[in-house]
Amino acid sequence: MAKKQQTAIAPVRAEDYPEWYQQVIKASDLAEKSPVRGCMVIKPWGYALWENIMRGMDDMFKATGVKNAYFPLFIPLSFLEKEAEHVEGFAKECAVVTHHRLEKSAKGGLVPAGRLNEPLVVRPTSETIIGDSFAKWVSSYRDLPILINQWANVVRWEMRTRIFLRTSEFLWQEGHTAHATREEAIERTRMMLEIYADFAETFLAMPVIRGRKTESERFPGAIDTLCIEAMMQDRKALQAGTSHFLGQNFALASGIRFQNDQEEEEYAWTTSWGSSTRLIGGLIMTHSDDNGLVLPPRIASAHVVLMPIIRRPEERSRVMTYTNNLAAHLRRQYYYRRPVQVEIDARDIGGARGWDWIKKGIPVRVEIGPKDIDKDAVFVGRRDREPRERVSIAADAFVSGFTDLLDEIQHNLYQRALGFREAHTVALDARDAFGAYFTPQNEAKPEIHGGFAKAPWCGDAACEKQIKDELNVTIRCIPLDAPRETGACVYCKKPSGQQVIFAKAY
Amino acid sequence: MAKKQQTAIAPVRAEDYPEWYQQVIKASDLAEKSPVRGCMVIKPWGYALWENIMRGMDDMFKATGVKNAYFPLFIPLSFLEKEAEHVEGFAKECAVVTHHRLEKSAKGGLVPAGRLNEPLVVRPTSETIIGDSFAKWVSSYRDLPILINQWANVVRWEMRTRIFLRTSEFLWQEGHTAHATREEAIERTRMMLEIYADFAETFLAMPVIRGRKTESERFPGAIDTLCIEAMMQDRKALQAGTSHFLGQNFALASGIRFQNDQEEEEYAWTTSWGSSTRLIGGLIMTHSDDNGLVLPPRIASAHVVLMPIIRRPEERSRVMTYTNNLAAHLRRQYYYRRPVQVEIDARDIGGARGWDWIKKGIPVRVEIGPKDIDKDAVFVGRRDREPRERVSIAADAFVSGFTDLLDEIQHNLYQRALGFREAHTVALDARDAFGAYFTPQNEAKPEIHGGFAKAPWCGDAACEKQIKDELNVTIRCIPLDAPRETGACVYCKKPSGQQVIFAKAY
Repeated sequence: MAKKQQTAIAPVRAEDYPEWYQQVIKASDLAEKSPVRGCMVIKPWGYALWENIMRGMDDMFKATGVKNAYFPLFIPLSFLEKEAEHVEGFAKECAVVTHHRLEKSAKGGLVPAGRLNEPLVVRPTSETIIGDSFAKWVSSYRDLPILINQWANVVRWEMRTRIFLRTSEFLWQEGHTAHATREEAIERTRMMLEIYADFAETFLAMPVIRGRKTESERFPGAIDTLCIEAMMQDRKALQAGTSHFLGQNFALASGIRFQNDQEEEEYAWTTSWGSSTRLIGGLIMTHSDDNGLVLPPRIASAHVVLMPIIRRPEERSRVMTYTNNLAAHLRRQYYYRRPVQVEIDARDIGGARGWDWIKKGIPVRVEIGPKDIDKDAVFVGRRDREPRERVSIAADAFVSGFTDLLDEIQHNLYQRALGFREAHTVALDARDAFGAYFTPQNEAKPEIHGGFAKAPWCGDAACEKQIKDELNVTIRCIPLDAPRETGACVYCKKPSGQQVIFAKAY
Repeated sequence: MAKKQQTAIAPVRAEDYPEWYQQVIKASDLAEKSPVRGCMVIKPWGYALWENIMRGMDDMFKATGVKNAYFPLFIPLSFLEKEAEHVEGFAKECAVVTHHRLEKSAKGGLVPAGRLNEPLVVRPTSETIIGDSFAKWVSSYRDLPILINQWANVVRWEMRTRIFLRTSEFLWQEGHTAHATREEAIERTRMMLEIYADFAETFLAMPVIRGRKTESERFPGAIDTLCIEAMMQDRKALQAGTSHFLGQNFALASGIRFQNDQEEEEYAWTTSWGSSTRLIGGLIMTHSDDNGLVLPPRIASAHVVLMPIIRRPEERSRVMTYTNNLAAHLRRQYYYRRPVQVEIDARDIGGARGWDWIKKGIPVRVEIGPKDIDKDAVFVGRRDREPRERVSIAADAFVSGFTDLLDEIQHNLYQRALGFREAHTVALDARDAFGAYFTPQNEAKPEIHGGFAKAPWCGDAACEKQIKDELNVTIRCIPLDAPRETGACVYCKKPSGQQVIFAKAY
């Protein structure tokens, strides 16, 4: 066995993937648990990722005519009850406000007082409250389409939580649109999925499969749920965004009616689509390694850190001047609509300094010492390469080539993630092989299994459930680009007309 | 009496100011009441204002080293209780979560279930929950200062609500900082007040008085509360932002301790500072007129609307091409870090079209008809002038002078608001004149009174309370630039060492 390499994160991925995930978050200072059950504190280095996600996505939404608005945090219980499947889907995980003040109790402590006539639910999603507004805003076909997005916090009371992946409160965007025709609503559902896919691949360097959920995995109340699915490094799938065609279900429930151009009254067709801070969890598990976080440049909290090396006091002024000057040159450049974000770290803590930034995933590290300055050069490390692999580059060339370097790193991360997914995706049509593929080879590490399986499926929800019960494997999606083909279901051997993606999932 | 001019808003300001305010919001489509008591729906034209406020302020915060983060929506009851004055200040208006799911009742409806062991309060402000994080993050003086801001929703259960001014849920930012020394915390408190003042004056064109609150008007738990106060067109004051020096109160309550450079343990000194969607209410009441909303260009939801005039179908193509071309030229320009925002309104609804945009407050309206195109000119109206005052301008000159035009409008709005405030501010030292100044001259319009009074005050809270009880007038602030002077209190004639600002207030 080869000598074990020193790594910054313990345990490493191969030892304990779930614990590695928590340790990467801790070492990179992205977020932490809060004293409130299931809620997280997103720290500045993590929140900057969310700011960059918001900026990038918001631009893409607006380019298609979507406008932002804001709706109440609270939903009256009666609203949630309007759509039967919807309330069924969310009732088990709702935070409920029942009182509107606090009073001193006999014992001296504070107790809830001022009971509300109707309890309020903290929004788990906003279809019903936004539907109520749409019903007021729409009367004629001329008022349609309505294209609205909201950046907000939502609450789904989760029993088992995990930072970024599953928290009781999370941040997200939820888009809601209403249309005069079924076709237009379906087109919008597809368009927003494409934006999610494009964003994930272009900004997060996260390759995704665009697909359709089976009936059992649909959003409560939807006619059709489209999704993007990404492979994490433990070969499990992460749903990274969903776009729902809601038909006329919510329009009926909320009374979104309009007069068409024949002066007949019709119900509108609606869609909703969402993505959340979960994307940050996906980002971490797609790129990070045994030395910590790895951030794709287009979404990174900062692009580069400059680390002046000052061994003697008399060198300080010269080295700091050179460093500040380099920072100024870099900051004058733009990368994906942001000025290049430069950190300067002048702490005198030895080698720990470089490792801190490796763990934080910054794309580029630059060391600047007196000898480098003599040559007008800088000593550059890249997060997509090994920590020790650093090269001296002429300062001018470094500055002028900087955004190209970022693009190269972005491209490499995407290609590496794509290669990983391809290496762990197989087409299967035999039941034995299918079962073996999803059975962990090492009982101590149940998370290590095959990966994604493309396989024919009969379309029967009962068969789907059996697979889930037996193997803990679900149909992640029916890929939108999957060819129609006749065959036998990989599990029950009934006729199949489609190939689907099976995987274990977050 | 002069013939009454036709106006777009009824009632006009002089008839019924509070109702005028509601009608301006309705006519401009900024926001509306929601079915949830006290909560508002912020519509796209209103939310765009908030987006611009966030962008402008966020840049200013970050330039001083502040970083954004996110903390939980919920605060455990025991946290709120840690600071005695603080909980006293908020207990009466807290939304309380007591359950975490819904269950079918015997009657078939849904009822709250899953009672929480400890109730959770929906944050009315986050000092206590953020203090808990700071306590974990700080151990040495090297960890200080911590400079954090959060953009979030908060809930304060209000019995009497008014859109943007006082709502149960509102959007805001809350900054929280911790420092090693008292002096540094005081300096930060002052710095953030200056940012609020600068933002209000530069972006919102809203002149403000920088001042200090009296003890009775302080934030619950603060040692010192600084504020900016603006005059609305009904001559009442609106508090538009506050910055609090919290001393060591919250550090003691939350345990924010650090080792100083002498290796002694100390408590940190903290500050907090906030501004909210209330700024939009202030914006409306500072600039709008009897024709509706008036938006300062630097914060406007859009800068200009182009209205093609097409009287015959054969003209359509030529007019639309010219319009789209003009839009493209305008959009290539930047104004305060945003590309110029152009709306094109090609609706065929006659004069109502222009009035729609006047009511929405867009800074510049442009009509483009075949005759204008023949001259390569556009017909331009400005929101800071009368609706009928429109001029023909050569298209080239219009485009090249566009951002200067916006600056001119911005400047005019600020000067007009400043002139209004100065015209309704007097220095008073006689009790009779003071009482008369704040006594409505027309009983049917109790809102019409003098305005701001600069007057000497003894510093006694009992006297302050008497003034409030008798005249419904409060001390808005002790201006930071008020000269120290000896005199007699305007009300009780005891010795006074300071001049303060008295006013009726929102």
